[in-house]
Amino acid sequence: MADLTPNPSFSVTMRVEIPQQPGMLASVLRAIAEVRGDLGDINLIQNGRNSFIRDITVAAYSTEHAAEIIQVVKDKTPAKVLDVYDRTFHLHEGGKITITSKLPLQGQDDLAMAYTPGVGRICMAIAEEPPLVHRLTIKSHTVAIVTDGSAVLGLGNIGPEAALPVMEGKAMLFQEFGGLDAFPICLATQDVDEIVATVKRIAPVFGGVNLEDISAPRCFEIEARLQQELDIPIFHDDQHGTAIVSLAALINALKVVGKSLDTIRIVINGAGAAGVAISRLLRKAGVKTIFLCDSKGIVSQDRPNLPPGKAEFAVPDAGTLADALKDADVFMGVSVPGVLTLEMVQSMAKDAIVFAMANPIPEIQPELIYDHVAVLATGRSDYPNQINNVLAFPGVFKGALACRSQAMTTTMFLEAAQAIADLVSPQDLNRDHIIPSVFDRRVANVVASAVEHCARSQGLARC
Amino acid sequence: MADLTPNPSFSVTMRVEIPQQPGMLASVLRAIAEVRGDLGDINLIQNGRNSFIRDITVAAYSTEHAAEIIQVVKDKTPAKVLDVYDRTFHLHEGGKITITSKLPLQGQDDLAMAYTPGVGRICMAIAEEPPLVHRLTIKSHTVAIVTDGSAVLGLGNIGPEAALPVMEGKAMLFQEFGGLDAFPICLATQDVDEIVATVKRIAPVFGGVNLEDISAPRCFEIEARLQQELDIPIFHDDQHGTAIVSLAALINALKVVGKSLDTIRIVINGAGAAGVAISRLLRKAGVKTIFLCDSKGIVSQDRPNLPPGKAEFAVPDAGTLADALKDADVFMGVSVPGVLTLEMVQSMAKDAIVFAMANPIPEIQPELIYDHVAVLATGRSDYPNQINNVLAFPGVFKGALACRSQAMTTTMFLEAAQAIADLVSPQDLNRDHIIPSVFDRRVANVVASAVEHCARSQGLARC
Repeated sequence: MADLTPNPSFSVTMRVEIPQQPGMLASVLRAIAEVRGDLGDINLIQNGRNSFIRDITVAAYSTEHAAEIIQVVKDKTPAKVLDVYDRTFHLHEGGKITITSKLPLQGQDDLAMAYTPGVGRICMAIAEEPPLVHRLTIKSHTVAIVTDGSAVLGLGNIGPEAALPVMEGKAMLFQEFGGLDAFPICLATQDVDEIVATVKRIAPVFGGVNLEDISAPRCFEIEARLQQELDIPIFHDDQHGTAIVSLAALINALKVVGKSLDTIRIVINGAGAAGVAISRLLRKAGVKTIFLCDSKGIVSQDRPNLPPGKAEFAVPDAGTLADALKDADVFMGVSVPGVLTLEMVQSMAKDAIVFAMANPIPEIQPELIYDHVAVLATGRSDYPNQINNVLAFPGVFKGALACRSQAMTTTMFLEAAQAIADLVSPQDLNRDHIIPSVFDRRVANVVASAVEHCARSQGLARC
Repeated sequence: MADLTPNPSFSVTMRVEIPQQPGMLASVLRAIAEVRGDLGDINLIQNGRNSFIRDITVAAYSTEHAAEIIQVVKDKTPAKVLDVYDRTFHLHEGGKITITSKLPLQGQDDLAMAYTPGVGRICMAIAEEPPLVHRLTIKSHTVAIVTDGSAVLGLGNIGPEAALPVMEGKAMLFQEFGGLDAFPICLATQDVDEIVATVKRIAPVFGGVNLEDISAPRCFEIEARLQQELDIPIFHDDQHGTAIVSLAALINALKVVGKSLDTIRIVINGAGAAGVAISRLLRKAGVKTIFLCDSKGIVSQDRPNLPPGKAEFAVPDAGTLADALKDADVFMGVSVPGVLTLEMVQSMAKDAIVFAMANPIPEIQPELIYDHVAVLATGRSDYPNQINNVLAFPGVFKGALACRSQAMTTTMFLEAAQAIADLVSPQDLNRDHIIPSVFDRRVANVVASAVEHCARSQGLARC
């Protein structure tokens, strides 16, 4: 953990008062550097006769590291720490999204058309011709981001309130990358029946439902039941978003090493929502040999009472993750930090592909194995090949909503993955560039186009 | 109905081709005027040798009237109607609100702080200290606008989809007048238990709940149960918004005529959510003599099986609305067009006050009685004294959310009404100005301040 790159998400700004003597600032900065703080802006706030005040911004790699840096400045330098300002916390104050009017409300005429009495005509038009709700309201471009807070990021079951910052962030991404309006629905229940009933009841406002951070195996049943009972697209991002982007990256990684989907041996570590969904999508894409592993090792047919999802991929073999990895071509981790070792990687087949996607700390420290594999990807933005769901979900919903698709399908996911992979041209493709950047503005559009085309081919489009 | 003012909410823009001959445009405009269309912009689009094309905007007073105007232009003028463009429908295309990010998302650093991995720190902070959800998310300033579509405007039970345009409009007003974020929740159920359960489950995201257009008597139970089971303010606007603004207007109308709340005889026509809530608030404000009437006349103790609400105001007397109005000082209508007659008004006490608030068509055509009453108010913007809920709900929520009040109380509503009334200074007060304009920007702030002060006095504030 201490070897990871300092990250702006752990950056703090310290306001410090430093004596007016030569070399004082340098000594403070040296102390910060010695504990591996990554210096950002250093602004002069006030210059006095005896002292000056500066704001020093430092990126740390963890909360503990940030605290350590502050302590070092306090204890071992001539600086007096006046204030500490946590940039990330400050950014989240009051939340991150806002709901605003698209129309002016300057006077009585605006009010009479947008609200009463004019709005009554719009209501009656929809009452008389229900499909008009798609044209005359926000429905056609509005997504519910639904969570029960049971599996938030890698933080576990922290509940609906604590999950809200993630859902707001997701709503930002929907707008920024997909041009869609999305609103967080954080449910104060973790009961499958209650979640299904609640989502069905609030569905009239929404064109689609993005399920988020709901733990397995409940997520499978919730998604399946909502798909059956609602006629709008339902998409569990932790499953399908991750699966789409992982497949896209794999398609290109295999080009780099000259192997093909139908002959590789692949080990997927982590048998939650993401692991099962990746396994399912890879199988649909043509992968024949999949070893799904969880914290107990290979998911084996020997084990009693396997839950849905795991059972589909149980194999006759049993053993540890290390056993599974011997001669494997691909490792995909959607699990926890530190479970992969250099020895395991070295036991893999030639030109091994490793996707260590645990977030924010990968299954293995990337630097440890970079020279021992052919292609390496993580979920992080500070290493090459970031496997990030934001490459998938905005475009997937944009395409599905554009044609008012009745559902999402596996075929759409396969096409979306192919579309993402195709954005990396043969000239640009190399071991450090198998996947487009999340800021590549083409991504959402090509994904949307692939999904929409698919919906039309499959007869699911309704406009 | 044909006597009401043309309204921009029924305005149409016709694109017409007119022969290039003297007097042709004038003849078209004359025809429109003859059927009482109210001419707006007349723009030249194209000027040709034989003809010219113009866009003519006309305000009508109903959908039928707009259609009549178009038909007259088609049948009785030399103009050829090329296209008809309904401004109100156009305005509502794609809905009226949008959800956007308050933060920039320009690069990896922004993403790392606003979303993963940075957001994980915010989640953990809330998980460890739950009240932080108010500070670090949208909750503290976000309101759910909840409806089941059972009593939408005066349109009746048109369902959740058809209700959505109203709820979007309400969200616009929350932002425009209260600076609050509000999101429409249109429920696909009209079962009280299901509505209560659903609102409770989605509550984590919201700082308050505005119930809207839910029919009586279910609205009373839903509000009461949510108040009991949730610790955030619950406010049924059709009840309390209407009651607050009606009381504010009444306070000032009584000043105009020199009567007082505790001695007047008041007739309230309409015993739905609004009528019952007005009755309750007036009683709290000191009114002693209230006759609540419904479509069957005076709500009398003789009637069997009176529903909750009505039962509270049943009187020993029985009779018609006309009976109730004899010698009454005040009529307040929250009912339907046409139920009040000139004869009834003439039978009222000297210096009668009439609030004909049925929307959009009042209980009586205002022109008919203007000279026969001391004060006249309606729900319409094209007559003096518009009684409009937008004077109340944005400020009420703003004040309650500012101090994180645990509930809304009747005392708050009384204070809010007084604050609204007080905005009309003694110099400005007259029969045509008993209530501030909805565009008076002071309103929401004085209401918020009154409500917040009240919450603090009552020990309901939590910050």
